[in-house]
Amino acid sequence: MAAEPKKIIIDTDPGIDDAMAIFLALRSPEVEVIGLTTIYGNVYTTLATRNALHLLEVAGRTDIPVAEGSHVTITKGTKLRIADFVHGADGLGNQNFDPPKGKPIEQSAAAFLVEQAKLHPGKVTVVALGPLTNIALAIELDPEFCKNIRQIVLLGGAFSVNGNVNPASEANIFGDPEAADIVFTCGADILAVGINVTHQVVLTDADRNKLMQSNGKFAQYLCKILEVYFSYHQEAYSMGGVYLHDPTALLAAVNPSLLTYTEGAVRVQTTGITRGLTLLYNKQKRFGEVTEWTDKPTIKVAVTVDAPTVIKLLMERLMES
Amino acid sequence: MAAEPKKIIIDTDPGIDDAMAIFLALRSPEVEVIGLTTIYGNVYTTLATRNALHLLEVAGRTDIPVAEGSHVTITKGTKLRIADFVHGADGLGNQNFDPPKGKPIEQSAAAFLVEQAKLHPGKVTVVALGPLTNIALAIELDPEFCKNIRQIVLLGGAFSVNGNVNPASEANIFGDPEAADIVFTCGADILAVGINVTHQVVLTDADRNKLMQSNGKFAQYLCKILEVYFSYHQEAYSMGGVYLHDPTALLAAVNPSLLTYTEGAVRVQTTGITRGLTLLYNKQKRFGEVTEWTDKPTIKVAVTVDAPTVIKLLMERLMES
Repeated sequence: MAAEPKKIIIDTDPGIDDAMAIFLALRSPEVEVIGLTTIYGNVYTTLATRNALHLLEVAGRTDIPVAEGSHVTITKGTKLRIADFVHGADGLGNQNFDPPKGKPIEQSAAAFLVEQAKLHPGKVTVVALGPLTNIALAIELDPEFCKNIRQIVLLGGAFSVNGNVNPASEANIFGDPEAADIVFTCGADILAVGINVTHQVVLTDADRNKLMQSNGKFAQYLCKILEVYFSYHQEAYSMGGVYLHDPTALLAAVNPSLLTYTEGAVRVQTTGITRGLTLLYNKQKRFGEVTEWTDKPTIKVAVTVDAPTVIKLLMERLMES
Repeated sequence: MAAEPKKIIIDTDPGIDDAMAIFLALRSPEVEVIGLTTIYGNVYTTLATRNALHLLEVAGRTDIPVAEGSHVTITKGTKLRIADFVHGADGLGNQNFDPPKGKPIEQSAAAFLVEQAKLHPGKVTVVALGPLTNIALAIELDPEFCKNIRQIVLLGGAFSVNGNVNPASEANIFGDPEAADIVFTCGADILAVGINVTHQVVLTDADRNKLMQSNGKFAQYLCKILEVYFSYHQEAYSMGGVYLHDPTALLAAVNPSLLTYTEGAVRVQTTGITRGLTLLYNKQKRFGEVTEWTDKPTIKVAVTVDAPTVIKLLMERLMES
């Protein structure tokens, strides 16, 4: 008898790799997507909501509710940094898709997260693919949220490597550093997948060609929107491929054994030139003095990934017709 | 015909591993020590000066001038963090040595550095083993200093690893973060040896036993002061050995081929929970936006070290009688 699929809520700012992750989730029998919540990041929140509804209509899964998230950061005075130069002005490769027919539910993302976690205690995994504002708001809304939630798998951080917004900071953490620090230190079961890991997972030009030749609905759709994403990677990294940030984080929730992990307290720098920097304390040294990491909860941080298997799973599932 | 020895000035806060580095320099025919400058760090500056004079008297090298450095940080409002719990209350293993007979020269450390660099343009290497206050003051005192100096080899930073003051920061950079940022961005030829490298160079208990059995004057002296340093490492790192921070940096000046290097701009975080963190931009990504690392000078940062050869050289030279 197959195990009951893992209930997941995807917090997302679609976003080209978000679209890939959402489709991948819908094709993964190991998980059941019980909702999408939206957040700014690759696009503004209103557009993220529109795109989330659109992607569910493309997939024929309008049964899945979409809850709109915060339009602003928890970190005071933060100007949103919208990555339209990575994903296109519409967040989906400048395809100018028709507006979706559906609407988001009345509940806010944070209220939906809190409610679902309470409804299915210990059963709901949040896969957070954008800045962590909604998750932090859920934590602030309900002190029990961290206990009710099964796990928070998040795409965020640049552990011991350069960031992708600037040398110090990865985009999702940079987007709302204080929210990230709230999430990392809340005591929930957290698995952080940083760009130190997702930069090992590259979809090549050859992979894209294979997708193009497939009859799969998702493969066909994605090939249309991927061009902008490939161009950005060529320009920024001189590479003929794209990083699979969000799909890797999604697959970490689907099958945690695809990655290896280290453990420790993680804090986020919220000011100055390294604002948004994530720093893991590995416990190698016992400090004589109390530090900002002392007595903070331990989280899991991804260290390596089985990239070939991630790519293989992604290709297989997205090419199904 | 042997090459002319490299002129070096050691900026130092002795300190047990400083004592090892100074003795090692005096036994290294590749370098000529033309002065010591003193700084707070392992001890307060006045005690650093006393210990520098004392060590030169032990070595019979009172011909080498000692210039006293700054008693305060460049970073405003910084309380000094003195590592007496690592090196003993006297900085030299709680041996309560007699006061030295000699005195420091009238010149300040910064003035001495500026003068020597001007006197021997392109010939003087500074080996900086403490917080970088004196070097930054020399840069502020004379805009030509960075051009006149041959190289600044410094023990400082924790590149992509946890610090030793707290998870974010290494002690010398933490001691005066703004001074460090001034030095890293001044445009001089800089080689930074961080604890990511010096933690690979361990003097074991067995090595210490070998030193004890030697008749060498320096070996005998060091065995007296090393006990406190071994105890600290046992307590903080559960290890039966000690890290050779300062001797490794000194040998990087003596023979740069003992280490390998990467290159990039380095900035120092000066506020918040990661105050004192050193961050290298590796140029892998071209950022669309101007960052705090953009257009900053490139420095060399040590990545690996030939630890067995460092230990072998250190043992051989300190055991000479």
